[in-house]
Amino acid sequence: MSLTDAQLAEIAAQRESRTETLRPTVPALEAMLYQAIPVLDHGFVRVIDYMGDDSAIVQAARVSYGRGTRRVSEDAGLIRYLMRHWHSTPFEMCEIKYHVKLPIFVARQWIRHRTANVNEYSARYSILDREFYIPAPEQLAAQSASNRQGRGDVLQGDEATHVLNLLRQDAMQTYDHYAEMLNETEAGEARDPARQGLARELARMNLTLNTYTQWYWKTDLHNLFHFLRLRADAHAQYEIRVYADAMLDTVAAWVPAACQAFKDYRLGAVTLSAQMLSTVKRMIAGEVVDQKASGLSKREWDEMMGALGKAP
Amino acid sequence: MSLTDAQLAEIAAQRESRTETLRPTVPALEAMLYQAIPVLDHGFVRVIDYMGDDSAIVQAARVSYGRGTRRVSEDAGLIRYLMRHWHSTPFEMCEIKYHVKLPIFVARQWIRHRTANVNEYSARYSILDREFYIPAPEQLAAQSASNRQGRGDVLQGDEATHVLNLLRQDAMQTYDHYAEMLNETEAGEARDPARQGLARELARMNLTLNTYTQWYWKTDLHNLFHFLRLRADAHAQYEIRVYADAMLDTVAAWVPAACQAFKDYRLGAVTLSAQMLSTVKRMIAGEVVDQKASGLSKREWDEMMGALGKAP
Amino acid sequence: MSLTDAQLAEIAAQRESRTETLRPTVPALEAMLYQAIPVLDHGFVRVIDYMGDDSAIVQAARVSYGRGTRRVSEDAGLIRYLMRHWHSTPFEMCEIKYHVKLPIFVARQWIRHRTANVNEYSARYSILDREFYIPAPEQLAAQSASNRQGRGDVLQGDEATHVLNLLRQDAMQTYDHYAEMLNETEAGEARDPARQGLARELARMNLTLNTYTQWYWKTDLHNLFHFLRLRADAHAQYEIRVYADAMLDTVAAWVPAACQAFKDYRLGAVTLSAQMLSTVKRMIAGEVVDQKASGLSKREWDEMMGALGKAP
Amino acid sequence: MSLTDAQLAEIAAQRESRTETLRPTVPALEAMLYQAIPVLDHGFVRVIDYMGDDSAIVQAARVSYGRGTRRVSEDAGLIRYLMRHWHSTPFEMCEIKYHVKLPIFVARQWIRHRTANVNEYSARYSILDREFYIPAPEQLAAQSASNRQGRGDVLQGDEATHVLNLLRQDAMQTYDHYAEMLNETEAGEARDPARQGLARELARMNLTLNTYTQWYWKTDLHNLFHFLRLRADAHAQYEIRVYADAMLDTVAAWVPAACQAFKDYRLGAVTLSAQMLSTVKRMIAGEVVDQKASGLSKREWDEMMGALGKAP
Repeated sequence: MSLTDAQLAEIAAQRESRTETLRPTVPALEAMLYQAIPVLDHGFVRVIDYMGDDSAIVQAARVSYGRGTRRVSEDAGLIRYLMRHWHSTPFEMCEIKYHVKLPIFVARQWIRHRTANVNEYSARYSILDREFYIPAPEQLAAQSASNRQGRGDVLQGDEATHVLNLLRQDAMQTYDHYAEMLNETEAGEARDPARQGLARELARMNLTLNTYTQWYWKTDLHNLFHFLRLRADAHAQYEIRVYADAMLDTVAAWVPAACQAFKDYRLGAVTLSAQMLSTVKRMIAGEVVDQKASGLSKREWDEMMGALGKAP
Repeated sequence: MSLTDAQLAEIAAQRESRTETLRPTVPALEAMLYQAIPVLDHGFVRVIDYMGDDSAIVQAARVSYGRGTRRVSEDAGLIRYLMRHWHSTPFEMCEIKYHVKLPIFVARQWIRHRTANVNEYSARYSILDREFYIPAPEQLAAQSASNRQGRGDVLQGDEATHVLNLLRQDAMQTYDHYAEMLNETEAGEARDPARQGLARELARMNLTLNTYTQWYWKTDLHNLFHFLRLRADAHAQYEIRVYADAMLDTVAAWVPAACQAFKDYRLGAVTLSAQMLSTVKRMIAGEVVDQKASGLSKREWDEMMGALGKAP
Repeated sequence: MSLTDAQLAEIAAQRESRTETLRPTVPALEAMLYQAIPVLDHGFVRVIDYMGDDSAIVQAARVSYGRGTRRVSEDAGLIRYLMRHWHSTPFEMCEIKYHVKLPIFVARQWIRHRTANVNEYSARYSILDREFYIPAPEQLAAQSASNRQGRGDVLQGDEATHVLNLLRQDAMQTYDHYAEMLNETEAGEARDPARQGLARELARMNLTLNTYTQWYWKTDLHNLFHFLRLRADAHAQYEIRVYADAMLDTVAAWVPAACQAFKDYRLGAVTLSAQMLSTVKRMIAGEVVDQKASGLSKREWDEMMGALGKAP
Repeated sequence: MSLTDAQLAEIAAQRESRTETLRPTVPALEAMLYQAIPVLDHGFVRVIDYMGDDSAIVQAARVSYGRGTRRVSEDAGLIRYLMRHWHSTPFEMCEIKYHVKLPIFVARQWIRHRTANVNEYSARYSILDREFYIPAPEQLAAQSASNRQGRGDVLQGDEATHVLNLLRQDAMQTYDHYAEMLNETEAGEARDPARQGLARELARMNLTLNTYTQWYWKTDLHNLFHFLRLRADAHAQYEIRVYADAMLDTVAAWVPAACQAFKDYRLGAVTLSAQMLSTVKRMIAGEVVDQKASGLSKREWDEMMGALGKAP
């Protein structure tokens, strides 16, 4: 990650200006506020603002359940109950805002999560920086033979070198041509006074999908958990999973009780279909069940055995 | 408005606990935080939490426009530009949470605004209080003769008295029967040990639509402005408009620049259709245009003349 | 259910007018189209329009996966795969529109599902019919002693009779006073020429929550499944569950493959938390595990044992 | 536009299979159904399915307004009223589904409209075609000097030739390297058996932003109008505006009354701020008002004068 001096100064300034508030605050998250957590080679995630804490979830649930919740003895238990029984609205009462720098192809996956607010750097309006994602050697994976959207072994030797060269050279060349077509210096002057310069909204189309962009992204805790369940998952592409992992750390600092419930009931949980449940009941009763006897398809059988920690 | 002693004590406690934060704070809104603003006879609106301020709007816009906005000299001007040109995403970067107590028939209108988070007191789970909205005499209006969803003159004399009596008596009687069917005392004991008591989720159906409910309601500034444009409008029903008016005051304290832009470009603005615009151009050119010559329908003509401050 | 002659004639007319289309059609759903399925004492659900079928889900998935899906041998298998792995967007490609008549307190639960389009009969604009929900005797349940939002035994004898009388009398009385305050005949004349009549938007507040309303409700299949998972569930209130059950039948006719996958992977499925999964693994390995040894709370243990079909 | 033979055959087959339906159908849209409308050099828009028609809007409004709308004499008038007074829910009752082929940088703008359902071709799963957008010479515009997100004069002579060469060569080279890194033939064999081939989810990052992608995109009429208002507007980038223009033609065929109301009250309309309205009133009264006297900023004055068809 490479923050400019101007950005570092801005972060330092943001971390200077303390004020008093009557709102709930979370010291563990305040300690992270504005700080850039490095992700990939040039990316980052940083928390810009937040609303609410674990107590805000409980407070919202108690508005819903009114006097009825007087007897619930402690907050963490109530939060676990809400998570287990899919009561989503109390989690919507917490909100968080991130500033993220990320490659465009990652941004294209991310934006599919629609229930969020986004302000992205506009390459129609401004000029993008000369920064692009080049995978670290250990992430340069071959296509998986068994899974069409997965990765296989890491590329080695000449093939690895060749691929890295192609990625790097093409990104640099297309960026250089982008800058050439724009015909504009840092200071906004024409590089070559004889040329007009192509419109920014057109020139950007010459950039490759590993070019970095950045945005402000704001969402509520319920929708953030949904995002994390899909993106902090082993099936997610590595390049978005590392962002989700970094964000999960911020959530653990922010709402520790809700985050633990999320890990237990979502991230670490497994859903058994009606047929799988029936098979598991037979197994618990001591019956030896094989795929054929289970009535499950080969694929479902393998998934269930995987979840149960058995070789398929 | 009648806050219970427990509620008053809770508000006082909330207003005691100051902490330090690195987040942006708005002193004018902090001064209102948690305080209940009375609305109607038993209702209120109070701000429970907020995220962001005028600067957060500018900050988000500058992420979008990057270096391009360096030249924009001042924030209020940028905010006005964003509002005028329907750039909605920067306003989505601010979030606010209210606690509202309101009659059920108002809640039914309000909930139609879908882009918000809501936790409502559950009458399935808990018992509602004995509070219902009875209009003040000056709000007891007759059906409008000209507008099917509007009000005419205020009812007078015997009719007014009779209507108020019916509303009051029916609300009290249905509530008393609700309590009787529940067969439960404040302390959760059976009133009459010989009876079981009807399930809460059923008993509630006996209540009238002017019974008060309450909820936590959280939304972003863009969607709040949309709500306010429709509900702080002269065409909105009085009983929801007074809530919108109270909320507009909190918005003015929170984001004064955005709120002023909203008043100028939305609340106080008028939209001219293609045909109206053509008529206005002719008028400016000095032509005397009547409805027939304008090509507008009678209704559109009247609306346009109203907007131009002329008798139709 | 009581459809008026005008409504029956309208349905008959709608079922007469066949036209040709190039769009996908579903004969089994066409057979149900416009027909009112009775729900509760005066309510109904009827399908008004639909877009797409099982093939549309497959088609959308194949746009996403492109050439990659050529090898997937059959559609139902692909649909099951999508459901199992939480791929929601292909299911969003199907859309359905219902006309529903339902008590207001049910409408208040239903409207919490925000991702849908709704047009409700406006009591601000028009006059509601004299129809209200009175539970059948076998649904007149006592409050559950163990579950604050559940039902216990059915009320018997005098208490049942008394409750039904209260519900019926209060609904009739408040409606009669509503009509009296409106002071308007069916034909729109004044009942009593000496009175002005209260504005409709005010008079409606005198109605009880079991009064029937109606709406058009349109949603996509993914969000409909989410609604059905929560509302066709045993924990849902009976009065909304019967609507969900009726809708589930229409979905089975419309998209049989997707509906079966939904039943197997959602309605009939169970989610095990990380701790529950660990316990189940030990049980399958032959270990005798009790609550204490499982590390689960009493409540979680009971829920897990219930899911496994064992007495807790 | 270049449809493959397989695609042409599929369209022909889709246009063959007529069935009967009880649903409302729109012959003018049926005539366009499945047909690809060419956009840009390789893109297209085609309608895949639709639900509802002008009558469905009216029907939904009448559910809302109940008996109250009996007197409204004709449908088009009601639709115009709904549009003029921002009644959005009846328009949500119509739904349309498009298949669109478009450059990635256009897709990135488009996806910002969140209230829609999308299934996009997955370059994580499958291999993208060798097709990229190269602007026609008359669209090769210079950066606007006055508007940071606008276009100026069309590039001429050597500069134009040079820019087109860069765009074409970079797109071809990066695509060729993408294919080389994938190391896969059309038939799914290894090009070079000595290499493993880079994972698809990684290789795609080498493509430029003018590469074509495709998706299914489904939305309701209200949100489609919102999209068209922003994207069929003169301020929208040309490359997305041509898609919006093509879609506007399909909407005119589908819901002619709603489309005409949209053109009059949205596309061709102008919104005057409180201050502009006050100025217009003075102008109509015969007063000569200049910018200074109006109290408007220079920018607002120019915008208002532009709307009034006057030189600023």
